[in-house]
Amino acid sequence: MESNNKDNIKNNLDKLFSTDFITTNKDGWNETEIFLKEFVEILLSYIKEENDRSSKVIDFHHPEDMLKLIDLHIPEKGMSLDKLLQSCKDVLKLCVRTGHPRFFNQNFSGLDIICMAGEWATATTNTSMYTYEIAPIFSLMEKEIMRKMIDLVGWGSNEGEGIFTPGGTMANLYGLVCARHNAFPNCKQFGLYSLPKLCCFTSKYSHYSAKAASAMIGIGMENCFEIMADKTGRMIPEALEEKIIECKNNGMYPFFVTATAGTTVYGAFDPIDKIADICEKYNIWLHVDAAWGGGLLLSPEYRWKLKGIERAKSVTWNPHKLMGSLLQCSAFLIKQQGLLLQTNQMSANYLYQQDKPYDVSYDTGDRSFQCGRRNDVLKLWLMWRSKGMEGYRIQINRLMDLAKYFTNKIKKTEGYEMVVDDPQFLNICFWYIPKNLRNIPQQEKMEKLGKIAPKIKGKMMERGTTMVGYQPDTNKPNFFRLIITNPATTKEDLNFLIQEIIDIANDI
Amino acid sequence: MESNNKDNIKNNLDKLFSTDFITTNKDGWNETEIFLKEFVEILLSYIKEENDRSSKVIDFHHPEDMLKLIDLHIPEKGMSLDKLLQSCKDVLKLCVRTGHPRFFNQNFSGLDIICMAGEWATATTNTSMYTYEIAPIFSLMEKEIMRKMIDLVGWGSNEGEGIFTPGGTMANLYGLVCARHNAFPNCKQFGLYSLPKLCCFTSKYSHYSAKAASAMIGIGMENCFEIMADKTGRMIPEALEEKIIECKNNGMYPFFVTATAGTTVYGAFDPIDKIADICEKYNIWLHVDAAWGGGLLLSPEYRWKLKGIERAKSVTWNPHKLMGSLLQCSAFLIKQQGLLLQTNQMSANYLYQQDKPYDVSYDTGDRSFQCGRRNDVLKLWLMWRSKGMEGYRIQINRLMDLAKYFTNKIKKTEGYEMVVDDPQFLNICFWYIPKNLRNIPQQEKMEKLGKIAPKIKGKMMERGTTMVGYQPDTNKPNFFRLIITNPATTKEDLNFLIQEIIDIANDI
Repeated sequence: MESNNKDNIKNNLDKLFSTDFITTNKDGWNETEIFLKEFVEILLSYIKEENDRSSKVIDFHHPEDMLKLIDLHIPEKGMSLDKLLQSCKDVLKLCVRTGHPRFFNQNFSGLDIICMAGEWATATTNTSMYTYEIAPIFSLMEKEIMRKMIDLVGWGSNEGEGIFTPGGTMANLYGLVCARHNAFPNCKQFGLYSLPKLCCFTSKYSHYSAKAASAMIGIGMENCFEIMADKTGRMIPEALEEKIIECKNNGMYPFFVTATAGTTVYGAFDPIDKIADICEKYNIWLHVDAAWGGGLLLSPEYRWKLKGIERAKSVTWNPHKLMGSLLQCSAFLIKQQGLLLQTNQMSANYLYQQDKPYDVSYDTGDRSFQCGRRNDVLKLWLMWRSKGMEGYRIQINRLMDLAKYFTNKIKKTEGYEMVVDDPQFLNICFWYIPKNLRNIPQQEKMEKLGKIAPKIKGKMMERGTTMVGYQPDTNKPNFFRLIITNPATTKEDLNFLIQEIIDIANDI
Repeated sequence: MESNNKDNIKNNLDKLFSTDFITTNKDGWNETEIFLKEFVEILLSYIKEENDRSSKVIDFHHPEDMLKLIDLHIPEKGMSLDKLLQSCKDVLKLCVRTGHPRFFNQNFSGLDIICMAGEWATATTNTSMYTYEIAPIFSLMEKEIMRKMIDLVGWGSNEGEGIFTPGGTMANLYGLVCARHNAFPNCKQFGLYSLPKLCCFTSKYSHYSAKAASAMIGIGMENCFEIMADKTGRMIPEALEEKIIECKNNGMYPFFVTATAGTTVYGAFDPIDKIADICEKYNIWLHVDAAWGGGLLLSPEYRWKLKGIERAKSVTWNPHKLMGSLLQCSAFLIKQQGLLLQTNQMSANYLYQQDKPYDVSYDTGDRSFQCGRRNDVLKLWLMWRSKGMEGYRIQINRLMDLAKYFTNKIKKTEGYEMVVDDPQFLNICFWYIPKNLRNIPQQEKMEKLGKIAPKIKGKMMERGTTMVGYQPDTNKPNFFRLIITNPATTKEDLNFLIQEIIDIANDI
């Protein structure tokens, strides 16, 4: 009879509504369970297909065409469970498969099954991180994971604390604001008005959040100086020192330097140790933006690339990049304990009462700029446990091997040309030179080359078989930037991409 | 045989690892499917229990005790699938049931099943919102939902745009920064240095993010003035105008006023229309923080409480509060199209190329301060479709009815005393006066009363049967603040709380 009842529900999803669920109907457990299991079947199909290399990475449609393929409107009356399942199917068909082994478009990719399960559980336990009161276990878990990350950065056991933020841009903003508070604690109360003119420094190839954060906090983009880089994309320390001196001579107050560990386009690692020397000499806060490169700290073979990171006062590290976490998972780490609280504390008495029936030092809310804050730790914790330290070491070293494999392969393949000869990380930047451009004067070639990558990309999206991004750089016309970060990717997938670009180029 | 194989996997989860999944093992589909289905069973049990009123809302342990109940460490070697399932069970046991019908602790609660399913799908399709290229359908969906919200705010069909932000604090920060950019577009480049001294205004009872954002952007907390409120917690417009004039006379530049629609503690609605008159008179940007109260716009019966919101230049509205979305779901809406782009655009050429093979006006990245940005729209879209406009109207009106029911009930129950006599919204603030404090002088009573709420709360958490928050206010000792926002809550649940507090008080 129970099974009859379940079949009955399954066959009548078109007559059932969300109001029939257990949450508003005490007899609605079967309806709830059956709907969710049907929903999970749809998600499982998606995951299966995403991992099938014969399936498309993207089913591309221009916006106006896509709007014809799906009905997005909010109806007057609620939709049946059946229609909601169909809505979900319709949406999934139109999603880009970022977990597909041939998606090389971004510096995140892959769908870690454990991490995803963790995110499902995060949704189910829907809470906010601000107090131990309502996020007891997640508060402790965040503390544990932050300690692990701090140990990997290399700070002492009595140093460091951290917090998850909504993305690397926010983490970099935290760095800037903590540094400002450290230098001028009165700024929090009274603003920048009576302060000297602050300025900060970052590499020409750093993430744009350095400038965005400078604009945000009121010091202005123009007072965030871009320092020249060498030909592999690393900040030139001598140029940094020169600029600092120049600023001081101009009456400005240099207070913050961002060194990047893994730049967005070239994957370059700024020489942190040398930059740290300069920061110490001039008493400037060193922040390391390791949003992308931080994961290398998990590899004993490659962590030397971040040598000196332990001298930083603060660090951004996004597990949703190299560590393969789902978005969003982004840590801000700071060496000096207590400063995060001093910087952000607003002491709202309706949340952070001091007379609570437990040790309120476990409440993280007053250390965060945000009030409500997502639980970003459970998925990472579960995934990290599934791999262990050893699993990450193997995974990351393998990705580095794949990058070398790809680099060697395209160096030997006719028509390909490297933008940076010897990539330092998992970003490989290259041009594909179509046959008709190979034997023409260099200047003409460069002029015409700028239009090639967008054309190939356009065709690639139409074919839908793979995805890789492109961009220009000063004096360098549009080139492709391949990112290898999905553990599902194999040499065959890389070979496929190499051949696909050739095929498309021959076609246009 | 297939079924044998599946049983075999199920029985051997202790020998299987995440590396056995389809993502890294092409024959690993069954392992993937079976693990995820087992995982979902655990989540289903959690949901079922959460909706069982005889189950606890919280199984409270002090931090040091909780650390003994669970092993949080990251191991050297990866854990088996079996151990990971057990880890998840262990964690869930220690979670606060924020979806329990008797959780009244926060201005979010409830677990909407459709919304949760949407969030599971969000995880599965793991992407970032910055470009149409990798979030095509979600970019369109966000546009659709923003338009819906803008229509509800009441701006014209050629006005308004919006973006999801990580929480109401961030949305309020967006408002402040857009207003600053509107008044002083050069600030983005050159900072606050050559600007007049900016100041802004907010009600005494507004959310602390108004001050936090002022500190962040460099104008300082002290230059964010708190305006007096009447006894129901509403900003007094005359006091606002006085303060504006005073600031101007002191050579300051008033540029921003926050009116709150639904204050955090009392649920008060500032008189937006009158505040808008003042803002127009002095040419000041009006931002309405409707993070909590915005949902009332869905009720034709109650939307009058936000009368005048259509005159705001920007609005914060968190669907993760009254609309019952899972965390995080927080919209920033702005009336003047284009300003969001002008304020935040950094034109990073590696993401927002203008020569892409599609209409790049659909890329939202340059309108956001964040770079990578979570997909917060799918869950809301799916939930909203499940309810329709009608469903929300019913749901929200019912919550308002419950609030009236509760208010009337405690007014008639011995020992209870209202803090604000006539609550305007879903926040009900009250004291419980234990018998021994009822007939003593007022001053002594007030002095002793401050210790009562924490004591009752402590016992309540130990019992674990329900949860409600408390806080003090100027001259008002600790009082309880009940929030009714979970559609699962019934009159019986409210009666339960009333009796539970009496029982606990009798016990201490």
